[in-house]
Amino acid sequence: MKQKANKPKRDEQKSMIVQGPVCPRPIEQREVIVMGHGSGGKMTRDLIARYFLPAFENPPLMQEDDSAVVQLSEAGRLAISTDGHIVDPIFFPGGDIGRLAVCGTVNDLAMVGAQPQWLTASFILEEGLPISTVERVAQSMRAAAEEAGVMIVAGDTKVAERGKADKIFISTTGIGHIPKGRDVSGTNARPGDVVILSGSLGDHGVAVLAERGGLALETTIKSDLAPLNKLVEAMFAAGSAIHVMRDPTRGGLATSLNEISQQSGVAIALDESSIPVRPAVKAACELLGFDPLYMANEGKLVAIVSPEEADKILAAMRATEVGAKACSIGEVMEAPAGRVLLRTAIGATRAIYMLAGEMLPRIC
Amino acid sequence: MKQKANKPKRDEQKSMIVQGPVCPRPIEQREVIVMGHGSGGKMTRDLIARYFLPAFENPPLMQEDDSAVVQLSEAGRLAISTDGHIVDPIFFPGGDIGRLAVCGTVNDLAMVGAQPQWLTASFILEEGLPISTVERVAQSMRAAAEEAGVMIVAGDTKVAERGKADKIFISTTGIGHIPKGRDVSGTNARPGDVVILSGSLGDHGVAVLAERGGLALETTIKSDLAPLNKLVEAMFAAGSAIHVMRDPTRGGLATSLNEISQQSGVAIALDESSIPVRPAVKAACELLGFDPLYMANEGKLVAIVSPEEADKILAAMRATEVGAKACSIGEVMEAPAGRVLLRTAIGATRAIYMLAGEMLPRIC
Repeated sequence: MKQKANKPKRDEQKSMIVQGPVCPRPIEQREVIVMGHGSGGKMTRDLIARYFLPAFENPPLMQEDDSAVVQLSEAGRLAISTDGHIVDPIFFPGGDIGRLAVCGTVNDLAMVGAQPQWLTASFILEEGLPISTVERVAQSMRAAAEEAGVMIVAGDTKVAERGKADKIFISTTGIGHIPKGRDVSGTNARPGDVVILSGSLGDHGVAVLAERGGLALETTIKSDLAPLNKLVEAMFAAGSAIHVMRDPTRGGLATSLNEISQQSGVAIALDESSIPVRPAVKAACELLGFDPLYMANEGKLVAIVSPEEADKILAAMRATEVGAKACSIGEVMEAPAGRVLLRTAIGATRAIYMLAGEMLPRIC
Repeated sequence: MKQKANKPKRDEQKSMIVQGPVCPRPIEQREVIVMGHGSGGKMTRDLIARYFLPAFENPPLMQEDDSAVVQLSEAGRLAISTDGHIVDPIFFPGGDIGRLAVCGTVNDLAMVGAQPQWLTASFILEEGLPISTVERVAQSMRAAAEEAGVMIVAGDTKVAERGKADKIFISTTGIGHIPKGRDVSGTNARPGDVVILSGSLGDHGVAVLAERGGLALETTIKSDLAPLNKLVEAMFAAGSAIHVMRDPTRGGLATSLNEISQQSGVAIALDESSIPVRPAVKAACELLGFDPLYMANEGKLVAIVSPEEADKILAAMRATEVGAKACSIGEVMEAPAGRVLLRTAIGATRAIYMLAGEMLPRIC
């Protein structure tokens, strides 16, 4: 961010008004985002200096040039991932769009075995958004970044007219280093591998849905939103034969496993009775006609690991907070390639497909 | 992108419909973006497989895991930059939002002396957007990426309800390597340095404004939108004493130079008569009451270089297409620190301040 953190003196501010509509009050008295906050001029800088720089403070960010400059200590493989976040509502039980933006990108990096290091954040704000919302979201991003151990090194802020965006959209990009010896990809599942799930399904989807209102859901379910990079490090410390990882967000576990089965050209068989779903989530899904296998998660991962190391990896996962309920839910088979099968509680087997059409809009 | 490029067979597609509203027609017959294109399921994957993957095709992208994995050949400094693009209208003379998204981020990287390598793109689409628009924007991004010599290695697509976004927003993040020996920062301007501008001011701002309509501007001005990384390489080939570079986008040259003067604690003196502005841009600005010093540019840079190397660097710039009109426009002085002064054509000197308030909304 090239915007300067220095607070201008009052009469300097006055003399700066040379162009465009006059800015009648200092920013601290304004309650809402106005178009001028996206001008790239003084108002943009004041907004950033007041709410983003103090929240994200770190040396590359404070340099305030057109790009952040970071030092990479060794050559090797870098993971790069991006995600746009347009969740509605922006605050929900267990999280908010800021925490989601940080964790979503941290988790995508961790899913290829990378150690997330640097994040960027591009904000699109709707004219009229309370500035207190910007502050709350920035603070939530700071907390999530600290929890995950990453730095938000660059940012950008734009403002769209009222009715041309919805409150706040955040696109985050993350960069991380992949330590030598790790080879995690959707193409690496092999017959005989064990499928591990880090916890119960559907918490995020139900929490957002309940908060969206109009549904009279009486539920205390919180989103599972959390950074997964420390869980992944614990897994690698226990065993290196982690072939595939994915966090089942939009589209749910069913979509993630279908992707993997197609990328690797294998079949994946799941045991329905072994897949954990909280009773309140199950009840909400039954009421609404949703299947937890398709519900979004934001703090869960599915891993496909060699059978020899599965127990060690599972034990390491269970020793962490986010992986306490980790369990084996199935196995990889040779055929039918590209298919996901579910062995149901009553002994039948049915095919599980990728999410078609739309289930829950703006879940992340 | 983890979305798979394989086109499913027709009856496979039919059997995939297990959740949510039925998708009655294959994607090629749909004319507009619907909410299902943001589901993260099959429709999202089909959209990406059809329009984004073929346009951006490269090995890290085609791996389709949660993150792209790239190989960094040597340790050292990396530049990281992000920008959100919400320009209105999305197509304008000389460019469009796709070309803008690529060039804007490439240029931010080049402004710290980096060689841009990898880009990510996060798309937020409005329900109802013609799919032909998505295709046109993706093709424009492909062309700009080829021109700049960068790869778009990761992406994300979300869909907001009609009236909750405006057609298409694109947030791009770029990563590039900074070769050893380059030290470019807004803090590096020194008294005696020469201020160089790569060409005429205000073309982008006037082009977008004219296209926005309702202004009855009869102008043939095109946006100057272009990647600047090859110009920067030509400059470094001619001289290494490039202390500061910045591309004067939102807020214009006046805002960029104020930022630099404050970061470096120096004064910058400009000669008004030496600052190139096309007659049509000048006329449009006079008509509308705008100052070209505050107009956005998308293919220009201002550089602050040592006086010993200024002529060599200028000559190298003039040998390129985008820098053909490069010229010296002023110099760095010790005092008054943090100020930008303009020596006008009639011999007076006036202070130039940072853009205050708002001038032209959604210019980039």
